[in-house]
Amino acid sequence: MAGNSFGKNFTLTTFGESHGEAIGGIIDGCPAGITIDLEAVEAEMKRRKPGQSDIVTQRKEPDSVKFLSGIFEGVTTGTPIGFIIENTNQKSKDYSHIEKIYRPSHADFTYDKKYGNRDYRGGGRSSARETACRVAGGAIAKQMLTDITINAFVSSVGEIFIDKPYQDLDFSKTEETAVRCPDLPTAAKMIKRIKEIKKSGDTVGGTVTCVIKNVPIGLGEPVFDKLHADLGKAMLSINAVKGFEFGSGFCGAKMKGSEHNDLFNEDGSTQTNLSGGIQGGISNGMDIYFRVAFKPVATIMQKQQTIDSDGNTVEMQGKGRHDPCVVPRAVPIVEAMAALVLADFWLRLRLSKL
Amino acid sequence: MAGNSFGKNFTLTTFGESHGEAIGGIIDGCPAGITIDLEAVEAEMKRRKPGQSDIVTQRKEPDSVKFLSGIFEGVTTGTPIGFIIENTNQKSKDYSHIEKIYRPSHADFTYDKKYGNRDYRGGGRSSARETACRVAGGAIAKQMLTDITINAFVSSVGEIFIDKPYQDLDFSKTEETAVRCPDLPTAAKMIKRIKEIKKSGDTVGGTVTCVIKNVPIGLGEPVFDKLHADLGKAMLSINAVKGFEFGSGFCGAKMKGSEHNDLFNEDGSTQTNLSGGIQGGISNGMDIYFRVAFKPVATIMQKQQTIDSDGNTVEMQGKGRHDPCVVPRAVPIVEAMAALVLADFWLRLRLSKL
Amino acid sequence: MAGNSFGKNFTLTTFGESHGEAIGGIIDGCPAGITIDLEAVEAEMKRRKPGQSDIVTQRKEPDSVKFLSGIFEGVTTGTPIGFIIENTNQKSKDYSHIEKIYRPSHADFTYDKKYGNRDYRGGGRSSARETACRVAGGAIAKQMLTDITINAFVSSVGEIFIDKPYQDLDFSKTEETAVRCPDLPTAAKMIKRIKEIKKSGDTVGGTVTCVIKNVPIGLGEPVFDKLHADLGKAMLSINAVKGFEFGSGFCGAKMKGSEHNDLFNEDGSTQTNLSGGIQGGISNGMDIYFRVAFKPVATIMQKQQTIDSDGNTVEMQGKGRHDPCVVPRAVPIVEAMAALVLADFWLRLRLSKL
Amino acid sequence: MAGNSFGKNFTLTTFGESHGEAIGGIIDGCPAGITIDLEAVEAEMKRRKPGQSDIVTQRKEPDSVKFLSGIFEGVTTGTPIGFIIENTNQKSKDYSHIEKIYRPSHADFTYDKKYGNRDYRGGGRSSARETACRVAGGAIAKQMLTDITINAFVSSVGEIFIDKPYQDLDFSKTEETAVRCPDLPTAAKMIKRIKEIKKSGDTVGGTVTCVIKNVPIGLGEPVFDKLHADLGKAMLSINAVKGFEFGSGFCGAKMKGSEHNDLFNEDGSTQTNLSGGIQGGISNGMDIYFRVAFKPVATIMQKQQTIDSDGNTVEMQGKGRHDPCVVPRAVPIVEAMAALVLADFWLRLRLSKL
Repeated sequence: MAGNSFGKNFTLTTFGESHGEAIGGIIDGCPAGITIDLEAVEAEMKRRKPGQSDIVTQRKEPDSVKFLSGIFEGVTTGTPIGFIIENTNQKSKDYSHIEKIYRPSHADFTYDKKYGNRDYRGGGRSSARETACRVAGGAIAKQMLTDITINAFVSSVGEIFIDKPYQDLDFSKTEETAVRCPDLPTAAKMIKRIKEIKKSGDTVGGTVTCVIKNVPIGLGEPVFDKLHADLGKAMLSINAVKGFEFGSGFCGAKMKGSEHNDLFNEDGSTQTNLSGGIQGGISNGMDIYFRVAFKPVATIMQKQQTIDSDGNTVEMQGKGRHDPCVVPRAVPIVEAMAALVLADFWLRLRLSKL
Repeated sequence: MAGNSFGKNFTLTTFGESHGEAIGGIIDGCPAGITIDLEAVEAEMKRRKPGQSDIVTQRKEPDSVKFLSGIFEGVTTGTPIGFIIENTNQKSKDYSHIEKIYRPSHADFTYDKKYGNRDYRGGGRSSARETACRVAGGAIAKQMLTDITINAFVSSVGEIFIDKPYQDLDFSKTEETAVRCPDLPTAAKMIKRIKEIKKSGDTVGGTVTCVIKNVPIGLGEPVFDKLHADLGKAMLSINAVKGFEFGSGFCGAKMKGSEHNDLFNEDGSTQTNLSGGIQGGISNGMDIYFRVAFKPVATIMQKQQTIDSDGNTVEMQGKGRHDPCVVPRAVPIVEAMAALVLADFWLRLRLSKL
Repeated sequence: MAGNSFGKNFTLTTFGESHGEAIGGIIDGCPAGITIDLEAVEAEMKRRKPGQSDIVTQRKEPDSVKFLSGIFEGVTTGTPIGFIIENTNQKSKDYSHIEKIYRPSHADFTYDKKYGNRDYRGGGRSSARETACRVAGGAIAKQMLTDITINAFVSSVGEIFIDKPYQDLDFSKTEETAVRCPDLPTAAKMIKRIKEIKKSGDTVGGTVTCVIKNVPIGLGEPVFDKLHADLGKAMLSINAVKGFEFGSGFCGAKMKGSEHNDLFNEDGSTQTNLSGGIQGGISNGMDIYFRVAFKPVATIMQKQQTIDSDGNTVEMQGKGRHDPCVVPRAVPIVEAMAALVLADFWLRLRLSKL
Repeated sequence: MAGNSFGKNFTLTTFGESHGEAIGGIIDGCPAGITIDLEAVEAEMKRRKPGQSDIVTQRKEPDSVKFLSGIFEGVTTGTPIGFIIENTNQKSKDYSHIEKIYRPSHADFTYDKKYGNRDYRGGGRSSARETACRVAGGAIAKQMLTDITINAFVSSVGEIFIDKPYQDLDFSKTEETAVRCPDLPTAAKMIKRIKEIKKSGDTVGGTVTCVIKNVPIGLGEPVFDKLHADLGKAMLSINAVKGFEFGSGFCGAKMKGSEHNDLFNEDGSTQTNLSGGIQGGISNGMDIYFRVAFKPVATIMQKQQTIDSDGNTVEMQGKGRHDPCVVPRAVPIVEAMAALVLADFWLRLRLSKL
C-alpha cells in the first residue's frame, strides 16, 4: 500500500534501489498454464538496458532477469513469480559528491522531506533503474496476451516529430534505428538532434506513441477503473512523464460532437476512431492508441546552482553516464506498462458475466 | 474490485444508475473529528447540478445529498459515511426510442458486449450522473484538507482559450459567469460560442485547468502511486476526458533540460515551476497545476446513422435535455476528484516515517 | 481501508449506525446475468430480524432491504448493487443514560479511545445491527452460488449441545424451532435454558455449526488467502465471536497423523473428512464444516458496577430490549458470511488457469 | 490478489517454492527511520529452521535472509524491503517417487485440480518452507513495535498440556527446551511423547498459545477488520492450523454474561480479561492472548494406500526428513504473523483521528 504494487488481479510488486545488491519483483495472479519464453523476456530487457547504442547512457549493465519461482518446466504454475535483476555496475563513488545536495528537478528534496532520510546513490528508489522490473513483469504479461500486439515508438524528440498518422507507419522498422522511430527519415533527424544535445551537455524531451491492436471487446471497468484511466496512471507512473492523451486527446477538446462521433459499421466496428478504441472506459475492439510526453532528463552536464540539505547554495554539475534523451529506452517501458494494464483487465473480464 | 471504489485509505465507493431510485456512495477511511459543514457540501452539489444556467442541460434535479451515517452531532465519527442522492427526474420514456440502439461514441455497445445486458435508460451506470457522488465525496475530502485550496476553471471551449498564465487570473471570478472561466472577456466569448453550438444542435469540447495551492510537502508515493499518476487516473476516470498533463505537460517534451530544470531558492522553493509542484511523484510544496481535455458530448440534436443490437442500420437523433458543452459543469468534478486524491495521500503521509 | 469492506472480487462494503436514518451497503463485483429473487432476500432478513420469537430481543424492526441499483428487470447488470435498510425503531432515549458510561465488555471504551468521540446510541457502529447488511449481501451471494448449499444451525447453548455428528441431522428441521437447532429434543432443552436465563436477567453463549455441501474443487488460494483462513476471518468478524475451528479443529491437535489423514477413494473423494473439505487451503469437493463460538451477550438486566468517561465509578443496569442468547439470530449471519467468502473465491477460481 | 500478500498498510508479499533456487518476499509500507538489527532477524530465523534439535526434521538449511533493498546504513528508508532466502538443500530426488501421487491430507490433489499442473517437489508452494518468509517479515515488524512483547509457546502436544494459566508461566524459559514449552516438567513429557511418536513413524498435533503484552489501545477496526479477525486469519493461514480462539474462546460459549463480563477498574483496565484484550474488535490495552490448533503432520513414515493422478490405487510411504510434530517450530511463525497483524493496525491507528 506504499505504492510499490500495480494491478488488482495481475499484480506486479517491485523493490530495489539502483545501488543495492539487486532489484526485483513479484508477479502475483499470473494464471497457471502459460508457456514462458525466457529469451523473449531477455529481448525485452535488452531494449531497455543502458549502453545499447551511442545515443543512450553508456553505463554497462547486463540486466539479466533471474526467475526464482512460479515457473516449472517452462510453464507458469499459478503461484507467484519472483525475480531479481542484479546490480552489477553500481559506482557509488559517482554519487558521493551529491550526498547532501538536492539536484534540481530530481526527487532528492522531496524524498528527504517525506522520509527524513534518503539513499542518495543514483537516485535510490527514484532511479529509473526500477523500470527494469516493469519490463520484466510486462514481458510475462505479453506472453499471456498472445493475440494482442502492442507497438510503441518514438513519435517526437524535442521539436522533431513524425508528421503522419500511425496507420502509415511500418512498426517492423521501429527497432531498426537506435531512436526507435519507425519513420526512418524522421529517425535520422532525431538521432542527429540527440547527438547535438549530448555534445552540448544538455538533454531533450520527447513523446512516445503506443498502438495496441487486436484487443478483445470488454476490457476496462465503467467508473473509476476505466481502461484509459488505468493506462494513463500506468504511463504517468513512469519516470519523467508529464502528460497522457488517447484517441483524439487534447485535439478532441477543440472539436464538435458532429465531427468527433465515431459512426458504426454494421459489424460494430467504427468508421473513424477518435475514441481511441475505448468507449465508456471499455475497449470496443478498435485500435487503442495513446501518446505519452516525457520531459528532458534533469541531470545535465552543465553547471547549475542549487542547494544542499543544510540550505547552503552550492554549484554542481552532472557526472557519470546519463541519457541525453530518455524516449528511445522508454519505448519498451511504455509497452510493458500497457501489457500490465491489459493483463489485469483481461483477467477481470472473466468476472463480468455469470 | 469492479472499479467502483477510488482511493486506498480515503476511499469513495459509488453506486447507482441515472434512472434508478437513487444513486449514492460510501466514504470509508475519513478520520474522526472533522467538523462537517453540510451547506458547503450542498454548495458544491449546486455547482455540478443540471439546470443551473442557460448553457447547460435544462434537466431539473435537486441533487441534494442525504447523509445516513458517519456524522454525529456535526462531526465525523471515523465510521463510514453513507449517503444517497435521489433521482427525482427520471424521464425513462425519453429513452425508450434507444432501447436497442447503440448510440455513436457512447458506452451502449461496449456495455452490451461486456455484460450481456444493459440498463439503457439514460446511459445507466455510464451516465455522468454518477459524478454527483464524486462531488459529494470530494466535498467531504475538502473539509478535511482545510489548508489546501483547489481551484479549477474552464481554460478553453473549442478553439477559444485563456491566453494568460494562471498566475494572472483572479479565481474569485470563476463562479461569476455560467461558463466558469475567471478571465471575463474570454468567458463572454466562450458563452457566445456555446450558445451558437447549442443552436446548431451540436456540441463542443473544452479543457479544465486546476491549480492547487498550499500543498504540504510529501504527498505521493515514489513508484506506481506517484501523486500525478493518481491525479491523472482520477481525471481520466471522469466521463468524456481524453487527456491529462501537469506542469510543463506536452510542451515539456519539446524542451531542453537546461530550460526545464527548476532551480532551488534557499528555502527549498523553486524559481520556476515546470515540475508542476511534483518531483519524483511527491509534492514539493509549490503550486500543483494540471490541465484536462474533455471531448464534445456525444449526444447531438442532429440526425446520425447508427446500428442497433441486431446489427440493423438505423437513423437516430438525440432527444431530451443534454449539455452542449460539458466543461462548465466539469469544474466542480475536477476539483472533487483532486480533493479525493489529495485526501488519500494526506492520510498516507502519516505512514511514511516512524 | 478502514475495514468496512469484505471480499476482494465480490466485495461488500457496509455503512451505518443503529440509530441513524438507515444502514446499507454496496455489493461490488457481482457479475451480470444473475436472476435475483427478492423474496428470498427478504426471507433471509426475517431469519435475522429482532422480534421473531419469544427467545430473542423484542425490538420491532421490519428490516426490509431496498435495492437502489445494479438490478434491472430482475437481473443483475454487473454494476454495483446499492441498498439501504431503514432504521425505523431507534429509541435513542433508551440510551441517554449511558451517554458517558463505558458498559462492561462492550466497545464503548475502545471506540472512545480510538476515535476521540462516539455515537453512544445503541452501540453506534459496533451494534450488531450492522449484520443486517451482511445478511442482505450474503443473500445476493447465495443466489449466485446456486449449486452450493450452506446450512448453519445452533449446535450448543451454554452447556447444552447436540451429541451427534452433523451427518445424522436433518437440516430441513433447523427452522422449525425458534432456537434453530435441527435436533428437536436438544432444541427443546435449549429453549428452556434460554427462557430461564432471560428470566434471571442474564445471558448465555453458544455455538453455531455450519455445513457447506456441493462445493466445487479449487476454492481458496494457497498461502495467505486459504479458504479456511478467510472463512475464519469472516466468522471472527461477527459480533461476539470468540473462536473458530474447521474439520477436526481443536480435537485434531490431540490426534496422530495415522488417525488424522483422510485416505482417498479412487474418484478423489476421501474415506474420512477430518480435513473439513479443505486441503492446503483449497476446497477438495468434500463437505466443508466449521464451528463458531459466541460469548454471552454483554448487556445483562442485572446491576453492574462500571466507570464513565470521566473515570468515575458508577452503577448501571441494562435497559431496552436485548437478546438473552445471540446464537439463534446468528445462524443466518454465519451463512451470509460463508456465502460472501465462497462467492469471492468462486469468482477468483476463474483466474487460476489460462 | 492471488493471496500471496498479507496486510493492508504494512504488507508482506511472498514468493517461492521449496525446491526453486530461492524463496523471498517484499515488505511494503514499512516506515522510514526504523533501526534494523540484522542479528535479531537471524535469531528469529534460527528458531524456525529445520535441524535445530532432535525432535524436529533433520534437514539442514541455513535459512539466512539476504536483504536487497529498503535498508540503508542500518535504517529503513521507507521504500520496499526486498529479501531472499536461498534454498540450499533441495533434494529433489526425494520426491521423484511422488511425482504423480496424491499424498493423503496434503495439497497435491487440490493444487492439481485448481491449476492443472503442480510443482510436486517438496509440496511446491504449499510447503511450509514458505513460512520462513513470514518469519523474516515478522522480524522486521517486531523491530517497529519496540514496546509490544509477543510471546508464543507450545501449550499442548497430543494429550499433554500445560494445566496452568499463562500468568503463572515464565516466558524466559520458553527457549530453554527443544519443544518451546515454558513449563519445564510439561516440556519434558512433551519431548518424550514426540520421540515415541517419531520412533513409531507417526506424527502428532498440538497447540500454540500466544500472549501479547503492552499493546496500545485502539488497534483494530470496528467491522470486518476486527483485530481478532485478522489475527485469526493470520493464524489460520499457517500450514496445518485447524482452529483459533482468543480470550475465553470456546469456553466462553458455555458461560453466562454475568460471569463473562470484564468489569472496569477506575483507570480503564479490567478486573478480569475474558475479552482477551479486545473489545468490539479493538485492543483495550489488556493482554491479548489466543490459542492455535495444529493438526498432526500428514507425512508419516508408515505405509498408506492412496491414488495417483490417473486414478490408480497405489501404496506409498513417507521418505525424507519430516517433523514428527510441528508445534515447536510453529512458535516463531505464530509470533511473526501476530507481529505482522499488529504492525498493520499500529500504522492504521494513525489514520483514525484528525
